[in-house]
Amino acid sequence: MPAHLDSFNPWQITESAFEWDGPGVAETVFALSNGYVGTRGTLDEGHPSASPGTFMAGVFEYHPLSYPEDGYGHPDKGQAIIGVAEGIPIRIEVDGASLDIDKTPPEVHERTLDLRAGTLHRTSEWTTSAGRRLRLQSTRLVSLTQRSVTAIHYEVEALDHPLQVVIRSELAVNRSALQIDSEDPRVGEALDRPFAPCFHRLFNDGGLLVHRTRSSGISVAAAVRHEVQMPDGGQLSTAAGEDEVLTTVAVDLRPGEKASVVKYICHVRSSDDSETELEARALAAMEDARKRGWNGLCFDQRAVLDEFWADTDVEIDGDAELQQGLRFDLFQILQASAFLSDAPIGAKALTGAGYSGHTFWDIEGFVAPTLTLLRPDHAARLLLWRASTLDTARRRAGVLGLKGAAFAWRTIDGHEASAYWPASTAAVHLNAAVSRAYNIHANATGRALTENGGVDMLVETARMWASIEHQDDDGRVHLFGVTGPDEYTGVVDDNVFTNLMAQRNLRTAADACDRYPEAARELSVNQSEVEGWRRIADAMFVPYDDARGIHPANQGFTTYREWNFDDNAVYPIQQHAHYAKIYRRQVVKQADLVLAMWWCPEAFTAEQTARNLEYYEQRTVRDSSLSAAVQSVVSARVGHLDLALAYLRECALADLRNVQGDSHQGIHLASLAGAWLAVASGFGGLRLDDENLRLAPRLPAKLSRIAFRLSWRGNRLTVEITSAGTTVSLPDGGEDLPVEIDGVAMTLTSSEPLLAPLVEARPMTPPPRQPPGREPGT
Amino acid sequence: MPAHLDSFNPWQITESAFEWDGPGVAETVFALSNGYVGTRGTLDEGHPSASPGTFMAGVFEYHPLSYPEDGYGHPDKGQAIIGVAEGIPIRIEVDGASLDIDKTPPEVHERTLDLRAGTLHRTSEWTTSAGRRLRLQSTRLVSLTQRSVTAIHYEVEALDHPLQVVIRSELAVNRSALQIDSEDPRVGEALDRPFAPCFHRLFNDGGLLVHRTRSSGISVAAAVRHEVQMPDGGQLSTAAGEDEVLTTVAVDLRPGEKASVVKYICHVRSSDDSETELEARALAAMEDARKRGWNGLCFDQRAVLDEFWADTDVEIDGDAELQQGLRFDLFQILQASAFLSDAPIGAKALTGAGYSGHTFWDIEGFVAPTLTLLRPDHAARLLLWRASTLDTARRRAGVLGLKGAAFAWRTIDGHEASAYWPASTAAVHLNAAVSRAYNIHANATGRALTENGGVDMLVETARMWASIEHQDDDGRVHLFGVTGPDEYTGVVDDNVFTNLMAQRNLRTAADACDRYPEAARELSVNQSEVEGWRRIADAMFVPYDDARGIHPANQGFTTYREWNFDDNAVYPIQQHAHYAKIYRRQVVKQADLVLAMWWCPEAFTAEQTARNLEYYEQRTVRDSSLSAAVQSVVSARVGHLDLALAYLRECALADLRNVQGDSHQGIHLASLAGAWLAVASGFGGLRLDDENLRLAPRLPAKLSRIAFRLSWRGNRLTVEITSAGTTVSLPDGGEDLPVEIDGVAMTLTSSEPLLAPLVEARPMTPPPRQPPGREPGT
Repeated sequence: MPAHLDSFNPWQITESAFEWDGPGVAETVFALSNGYVGTRGTLDEGHPSASPGTFMAGVFEYHPLSYPEDGYGHPDKGQAIIGVAEGIPIRIEVDGASLDIDKTPPEVHERTLDLRAGTLHRTSEWTTSAGRRLRLQSTRLVSLTQRSVTAIHYEVEALDHPLQVVIRSELAVNRSALQIDSEDPRVGEALDRPFAPCFHRLFNDGGLLVHRTRSSGISVAAAVRHEVQMPDGGQLSTAAGEDEVLTTVAVDLRPGEKASVVKYICHVRSSDDSETELEARALAAMEDARKRGWNGLCFDQRAVLDEFWADTDVEIDGDAELQQGLRFDLFQILQASAFLSDAPIGAKALTGAGYSGHTFWDIEGFVAPTLTLLRPDHAARLLLWRASTLDTARRRAGVLGLKGAAFAWRTIDGHEASAYWPASTAAVHLNAAVSRAYNIHANATGRALTENGGVDMLVETARMWASIEHQDDDGRVHLFGVTGPDEYTGVVDDNVFTNLMAQRNLRTAADACDRYPEAARELSVNQSEVEGWRRIADAMFVPYDDARGIHPANQGFTTYREWNFDDNAVYPIQQHAHYAKIYRRQVVKQADLVLAMWWCPEAFTAEQTARNLEYYEQRTVRDSSLSAAVQSVVSARVGHLDLALAYLRECALADLRNVQGDSHQGIHLASLAGAWLAVASGFGGLRLDDENLRLAPRLPAKLSRIAFRLSWRGNRLTVEITSAGTTVSLPDGGEDLPVEIDGVAMTLTSSEPLLAPLVEARPMTPPPRQPPGREPGT
Repeated sequence: MPAHLDSFNPWQITESAFEWDGPGVAETVFALSNGYVGTRGTLDEGHPSASPGTFMAGVFEYHPLSYPEDGYGHPDKGQAIIGVAEGIPIRIEVDGASLDIDKTPPEVHERTLDLRAGTLHRTSEWTTSAGRRLRLQSTRLVSLTQRSVTAIHYEVEALDHPLQVVIRSELAVNRSALQIDSEDPRVGEALDRPFAPCFHRLFNDGGLLVHRTRSSGISVAAAVRHEVQMPDGGQLSTAAGEDEVLTTVAVDLRPGEKASVVKYICHVRSSDDSETELEARALAAMEDARKRGWNGLCFDQRAVLDEFWADTDVEIDGDAELQQGLRFDLFQILQASAFLSDAPIGAKALTGAGYSGHTFWDIEGFVAPTLTLLRPDHAARLLLWRASTLDTARRRAGVLGLKGAAFAWRTIDGHEASAYWPASTAAVHLNAAVSRAYNIHANATGRALTENGGVDMLVETARMWASIEHQDDDGRVHLFGVTGPDEYTGVVDDNVFTNLMAQRNLRTAADACDRYPEAARELSVNQSEVEGWRRIADAMFVPYDDARGIHPANQGFTTYREWNFDDNAVYPIQQHAHYAKIYRRQVVKQADLVLAMWWCPEAFTAEQTARNLEYYEQRTVRDSSLSAAVQSVVSARVGHLDLALAYLRECALADLRNVQGDSHQGIHLASLAGAWLAVASGFGGLRLDDENLRLAPRLPAKLSRIAFRLSWRGNRLTVEITSAGTTVSLPDGGEDLPVEIDGVAMTLTSSEPLLAPLVEARPMTPPPRQPPGREPGT
């Protein structure tokens, strides 16, 4: 158990000692967000700190991208999420000396993230150098009901002696220490102090800062106000400048007396509104927050979470750490998406600046299906965002000499921001992963594809596939020179995952045009184009290695030299070996062919699935956090339940255990969403894109019960798996639903739950081995 | 005919009007060099000028290479050739006003590069604004007998009125205007004023500058002295500073009187010697030059060239421009190599800073064989340089996780300086091209492979091949993920050129170990290793497209989509299309499979060669200057002699006609060397790596005679092809030589020439077509 987490309380994450040598992971774990604004879990006093920051979805700055050897179509502008005005810091001086946690270690220190309250609570107790004791308690929330609002309840108490206390509360911008990988000094220039001040306002108890990014043209207004309760004689004052509002409370406390401050911070942003409109929006949000008050905000927060947990909770009997981890994961999914609007969800959501705040295909691949089944409206907003980048993707396809649309590998505003094309532009599979999310959403919600722009997405991605395919003399269709999900095998021919996903993309586009002829007509789709897509899909070549009875990840893969794990088992491999070598070795960074077996199961027999898993397990080093969930799902399906559980634990605990060693940069959202999928789609056997709800429940020996909930066609379902069998019910009622459990078709009614016996796993192969040092932890 | 060249004098290149709008190409064409030091053909007065510069082989500076997305093993230091102290500028003031060629156009202006004298002569005549006429004549040489020496004879004559003349002669360093593609400001910082001053000396008639590069640690000393002849009353004075020596001559001329200056400039460089030693070397060189005097240097220059032309001249009857062009090409090959020592020949030799002064595989591929057959000692020095980088290449192989040695794609000091691995590290064929040069040299000279480090080179490259090959279930050997010479088709499997060259490399390494067992033992080669190489070579897979009866350039190539030339015939294609598209289209930047047919002819039947050429001609856009020579050779062999001649003209005139539009950056040395190979190996049918001298002479209809000379096993041979037949003779005598002409074995003796009838070309296919706009010019 990591030092900073002292219990597996099912609803709370607590640290009872501060990790002095590395606060970054705690800042990530204790980050609060609502998908519009988010702030890292730094201490009130701001240090020691790894990388503080308050972020807003869609607030980023451009910076130059330059290449030592340039090529046509390489993006010349990068994008990076930037810290907005930060209102977390509240510093304290006692008897004239600032209370520095570095120099004066507290006797008591505890922080608790409460997953039902939606707050981060902190208690610290110090004895000053003069031997006087005080207690600090703070509670922080980022509102799940008022998207602009962050609120902090901050309280100082003199325990045994009189204290002269000065509290300095800050709202400041352009202070972030840069964390840039680039060695190009122009990048630092662009991102250092990225906000130009527009104007500021000063109130007695706070102020307002309005700024605009220099290049991306995004305006942000941040307001702060304070409500103070303190003994008579205390004084409140504020000063404000271009980049800072500083509110000071000075008060003398007698033993047992407290000074408490409620700090409201409101962030709004826009690329269109005038700065004056923005100011008005910020101040209106501030009035709403103050009207509701601290207690009201806390009440609302708990109400939202009560509803959330009622809809989404997962229960695990037999593994308290996993239970806690899965709830933390779900909480993060809510935090990432609650107030999603016209911006993407970044790979780290708003919990850190890792990956420059960019979104990647795994948000659609892993997060969108999870949201679809838990919070379908949030999922819809995510899909709408990607659909809003369609014109940008059409232009990118034009640059690439393709038809249709080619979506960005990494982006905030829709424009491609990847500077290494073999692992981005060549990873054309992302277009299928993106369009798949629209199909899953339509299927699982029963809503029309057209609601979220799904027909446009499917049609334009189908056109892209039709413009890159190659046909051999026998009429078989190939995709050459692509990179699949496994970034250790790049620029290959006929990657099985890509080919199957393209096939699916083409077929679902054709089906969508049949089903929504009006939408198709608006896109100038005619019958011959649709028939062309079906022809290409039918002719798609899928390589198979007859001698081994397995699918090569791509044409020729099984002929590559094996990785020499005896001499080169140093991970992550990409930091110790050149792409020119890695790309043509049988070493797999992340599930690729195995992902194809999850997402396109119809293309594999049960025997092939078992043999393929066995083969690729031995060669998959899991240097990407995206891998474990996939390996968990397919291991569960094949019947290796202990292995599936081990992988589930790895992805569920990705950040609580800092599995990849880089959680200080932010959470691994796709991994956390993958953990829920590993429960539902792995142990639950849920098929994500079938017309009917299909389950194939399995239970690993170490667990006595797995229960999860999901939203299906507008109904809330519960699924409970125990050794006695599986129970599926409609606790809120609803229409009759066809459900298939382990291949047996049934009808679920609101009157009584469905019961099915638990099928025992009978794996066709022995438990697979992994590369040395890459066995999943326990 | 380009404006700047007004005649096809067979021995002189003359411009009789200055190209005001673009002096860069003339600066390249009129560049003088001896392979140790070289200087661009700028006007004496230094402007108008595109990019003046004096360069020394091996004098470069490092600069940072940074990547927007970095990867393991990507080089972090670039290298760039930098201008050393420049002694060309001699400026003139008449009657108090500087004579500015921009403002005062001369009535007469002519510059002539004399290929037999080895000088650049210039005559200009002006009328000053006061109506007074003067004549300037200057002659410049970079000595072919004294490697450090540049000398200028500069003469001003008053034609009709008295003139007050001031001549300012300069030696200056750290003045080069940077011509950098990189947008990274740190590159400019590193290369702007790259020389730190050590000390300087002042003489009455000149001075000396000693500098050292800041990062690469190379010291350069440059001395200058002047000998002046002028009427009484003239004055000579010199001033010197850290970066400059300025010598001034002030004299009054009466009509018909002249002032003449001989300026001697001596450059020496070292990475090891102390600056004091370097000073002594520069001054000693200066004394040698002055002792020999201007007339002596001119006499020596002509003597060297007389000998050079006697050994190397090519005669073309029926095409005066081609005749002139081929002599220019040979002159450039001499200029590039005469004093080669411990530095490579850059792609532009010392005629410009293009490609940052880097050497590439085409120097070994095209220049080394040409030198081997014309100037075998110069070739040997080139091979010794590459062999001196063997340890660096061993370390690079280690970084790449390979055995043996992996040579740099682009470099000056042996370290890899390429920042785009798919077109460099993946272009592993370069190792075979490099080792091939050693075999050709040993074979054509009859000298031992060990003389130039050839056994080491062959063994270590063979080891590299043995460590990257893959074996399939049938035991066939594949090379996956490589890039062949065609940079429009990257990261492919089983590139035919690469596989055949690797096969050859492995076999010649095995043969070399048999022949030089002592050398092999020193490299710890044992019999089983040698047998392994032979086994791999024998099992090398070479893809073939049975349906089309041609070789795909790589596995799958003929299945790629065709390039849509109707919509995309804009060249160079790489500036208008993304690699992700180009890499998997049937569009060829430069001969690749066709180069395989030249260098590995034993692998192709005559029918395959004809069909392959026809197929690839239609798809080769020749966006690289390396292509035309290859297409010329194979077109000649296949019997398309008019086409072969058109390609020969294109490569022979690459710079005189500025075919690629970038000759202002320096000559295309490999193309110029390729022109000679197109004569000897194309029309002469010379096989470069056979034990015996083999010829297959052909004569295109437009020419009545082709004659060339070459050195073979220490003998000078002449080959003359006319419609009456081919004559091969040993004009200087020598041992009897087996010679095969069109498959007929004969013996050449010194007593009488061999005669063979001219075989008429009988092509098996109609003349091939090229992509639109890419037919060779005429």
